[in-house]
Amino acid sequence: MAACRVVETREARGLDEREAERIKAFEADGLEKHLDNDYIICLVDDGREMTSAEFSRFLDKRRSAGSGKPVFVVGGFLGLAERVLARADFRLSLSRMTLTHELARIVLLEQVYRALAISKNLQFAK
Amino acid sequence: MAACRVVETREARGLDEREAERIKAFEADGLEKHLDNDYIICLVDDGREMTSAEFSRFLDKRRSAGSGKPVFVVGGFLGLAERVLARADFRLSLSRMTLTHELARIVLLEQVYRALAISKNLQFAK
Repeated sequence: MAACRVVETREARGLDEREAERIKAFEADGLEKHLDNDYIICLVDDGREMTSAEFSRFLDKRRSAGSGKPVFVVGGFLGLAERVLARADFRLSLSRMTLTHELARIVLLEQVYRALAISKNLQFAK
Repeated sequence: MAACRVVETREARGLDEREAERIKAFEADGLEKHLDNDYIICLVDDGREMTSAEFSRFLDKRRSAGSGKPVFVVGGFLGLAERVLARADFRLSLSRMTLTHELARIVLLEQVYRALAISKNLQFAK
């Protein structure tokens, strides 16, 4: 239905949580290597929420826009560095609740699949 | 920190999705056996959303209320029967997006853990 690539970048380890900025900067280095002239969607707690149907239309629009493939950026356990957030074309929230980044990835992947399924009018879509 | 029991009830299988009401009624039978004089929290897409911190305070309040332990009810792939929803003391939404019931359970469990951790001022809490 659509090609989708999952890229895992390095997490900062062994640093104390008080060094939050260093941790996020380290992780930003890894993320930025994979950001190009894409449509960058950062996952943040306080971003815009959508229903699955709205998310499906959102991705449809991105596909028809043609330029810049959608790239979802999930931060580490402290979230994303400001300089990554500054590049966001869109800030998306999966939930008002704070998800672990591992869970955010699973929910996001399932939603992308669901969005494509809704778009193709598959049965299970709500 | 707190006792938590996960009860899985039977899913309706082998019925066509057009028989939605029968499926939900069958699943309601299984769920109702486990609902007592509890504080019933039904998980629904269009329920009330909370941040993790709000959810933590919500559970704290339930604990101090004393009567009626909180019971979370997650429906099957078609959601919950009206008669189960009618018993809800609270309708909670984990996300505007429609999660599979399997994912909803994982997210919910993680949020309950997080809520307790926030309540105990554990470090990772946001």
